[in-house]
Amino acid sequence: IMDFRAEDHQHIRYNPLKGEWILVSPHRMKRPWSGQVEDVTEDDVPEFDPQNPLCPGVKRASGEVNPKYESTFAFPNDFPALLDDVPSPSESDDPLFQMGSAKGHCRVLCFHPKSNVTLPVMTLQEIRTVIDRWIEEMQTLSEKFDWVQIFENKGSMMGCSNPHPHCQIWSSSFLPNEARIKDQYQREYFQKYNKPLLMDYVKKEINKKERIVVENCHWVVVVPFWATWPFETMILPKEHFKRFTDLKNIHKDSLADIIKKITTKYDNLFRVSFPYSMGWHGAPTGSKMKEDANHWVFHGIYYPPLLRSATVKKFMVGYELLAQAQRDLTPEQAAERLRNLSTVHYKQENK
Amino acid sequence: IMDFRAEDHQHIRYNPLKGEWILVSPHRMKRPWSGQVEDVTEDDVPEFDPQNPLCPGVKRASGEVNPKYESTFAFPNDFPALLDDVPSPSESDDPLFQMGSAKGHCRVLCFHPKSNVTLPVMTLQEIRTVIDRWIEEMQTLSEKFDWVQIFENKGSMMGCSNPHPHCQIWSSSFLPNEARIKDQYQREYFQKYNKPLLMDYVKKEINKKERIVVENCHWVVVVPFWATWPFETMILPKEHFKRFTDLKNIHKDSLADIIKKITTKYDNLFRVSFPYSMGWHGAPTGSKMKEDANHWVFHGIYYPPLLRSATVKKFMVGYELLAQAQRDLTPEQAAERLRNLSTVHYKQENK
Ligand SMILES: O=P(O)(O)O[C@H]1O[C@H](CO)[C@@H](O)[C@H](O)[C@H]1O
Ligand SMILES: O=P(O)(O)O[C@H]1O[C@H](CO)[C@@H](O)[C@H](O)[C@H]1O
Repeated sequence: IMDFRAEDHQHIRYNPLKGEWILVSPHRMKRPWSGQVEDVTEDDVPEFDPQNPLCPGVKRASGEVNPKYESTFAFPNDFPALLDDVPSPSESDDPLFQMGSAKGHCRVLCFHPKSNVTLPVMTLQEIRTVIDRWIEEMQTLSEKFDWVQIFENKGSMMGCSNPHPHCQIWSSSFLPNEARIKDQYQREYFQKYNKPLLMDYVKKEINKKERIVVENCHWVVVVPFWATWPFETMILPKEHFKRFTDLKNIHKDSLADIIKKITTKYDNLFRVSFPYSMGWHGAPTGSKMKEDANHWVFHGIYYPPLLRSATVKKFMVGYELLAQAQRDLTPEQAAERLRNLSTVHYKQENK
Repeated sequence: IMDFRAEDHQHIRYNPLKGEWILVSPHRMKRPWSGQVEDVTEDDVPEFDPQNPLCPGVKRASGEVNPKYESTFAFPNDFPALLDDVPSPSESDDPLFQMGSAKGHCRVLCFHPKSNVTLPVMTLQEIRTVIDRWIEEMQTLSEKFDWVQIFENKGSMMGCSNPHPHCQIWSSSFLPNEARIKDQYQREYFQKYNKPLLMDYVKKEINKKERIVVENCHWVVVVPFWATWPFETMILPKEHFKRFTDLKNIHKDSLADIIKKITTKYDNLFRVSFPYSMGWHGAPTGSKMKEDANHWVFHGIYYPPLLRSATVKKFMVGYELLAQAQRDLTPEQAAERLRNLSTVHYKQENK
């Protein structure tokens, strides 16, 4: 009988943050690809477009005119999915027809005045400014809202409706599913082991080394053991922060460095501006700010859709939607590929 | 202060099958669309393509030659994500690095010898034959496997790598996440109310009427109260079946009728071959066949990605992946639109 080898033999892996399993089928990388091929991400974005509502000095749908900003710029989303001032549904005692109140606020944060730059080609100082702005937004919004979700949808493959470098910030009066589930699993782990799950995890990954993509003094990027998307990564801190707002200047500088490195590696993987959704998770805020949150560890998450090339993505469809997420290459294989890539961006190689 | 109206005011809704919430933001339908536009699903598929491994008489990657089948045809997937004969990982006592054994089998079932037909344009008798074959496959595979997932990925938007009408059947030694979660929530409901959750649900929907799309003697199609995808639907039985294999001939005929109706309405919505992932869920099988399964109700699920038109889909990205699923139009609005559509297919209108 053969010995089990994770890189050859299908198996399932457990995600201890969510209580879910993922199916890993590494032998499937061998199949030829005959599925849908995507358009290559556009490369010819103009630096300034007078029709683009995210550009400096342009009039937005709301009628407001953007300032001629020279660094970052934050403003309320003109088509928000979450409004602050809406009536609440009345209570129902039928367990099958439960509605709840949802209040919130949606903001947009532009990273840079130019439409044709992305985080990996921005300077460390420019990225550091984005981090400062993220933390300021967190600080303000977390006074009022229980959850503040900062996220970046990058690339049209991720439904991003605007090429200008920006992220969104959706704040809500409720804990969204992902937050609630991660809160629960981290809490249970802490109760059992008296240590935060992700601090235990990052220490073990630093020892094991096989899933580390890049690290610096304060941060480690790993392809998590339970990664769902082919090149999914997590940015984990080496010391325990519960929230984005816990970071000191030195950690922020160092975070800018690690963001530049991981996003550069991503672009270098298929020599294309790499699409992804990314975001930050930390302890709940608002009315939950005073609750004990020692089980929470602040971290970043990248969910990139590409699988085989710049034009072949992973589809989370039939089996994934109806049964369980499935991946082809192993997290260790993905980490190795990303680890071996340069931290010099392919467009800046000759500079 | 305004009265709450679900069709105007954002709120969250509870999915009692999964313990999850969904954010409904109906006011967001008003925003202009500036995001990615998809290609229209191809319409010019040839009836027969000698290069297509799903066509009758064609040689597949395995070297096998398909029979010149005249109705349905089932065979083992040549590039299976699940294999039956693989070594199992050894046990780990580290809660953060848990792997489990996964064995399984993947099959493909062609619905029809012609590549250029789809379920809605097939005859009732042809659809009935597909149902018979689904049930035969379930019967055989459920002897050995704890979960048998029949699913159809339709359209290149759903990563479908072949236009020939077909579905896949992935069987596994383990209960996938979706099955495990639905098992748990249905079980808890049954313990509390002594009735199957979905039988209670279907009765209430029949009374309420507002989310019904189409019904016949034995089946009801609803946009569930907790629908995630814009035009998501469920096929629910009017009497209690636990598994696909419980259906009698009369229910199978009637299921063919309801499948033809819902898929026809889907195609008529944007006058295009409507992409979706769909599949069937019923009580676990294999080693779980002898366990009590009264809490389970057999049902079908359609997850279609389109939102506004044949080329504008809903992206489940940043906020959805990192926080919570979000929808624009309400389930009641979606049901009304589908309900008002003809059950005569737009391509067969003049016949
Ligand atoms: O087997 P196919 O059609 O090549 O593959 C498709 O369906 C599978 C099952 O949902 C998914 O895992 C793949 O990502 C998708 O491309
Ligand atoms: O707000 P945008 O960029 O128009 O919209 C995009 O991101 C949102 C948040 O993840 C999603 O709800 C939308 O489906 C997606 O198209």
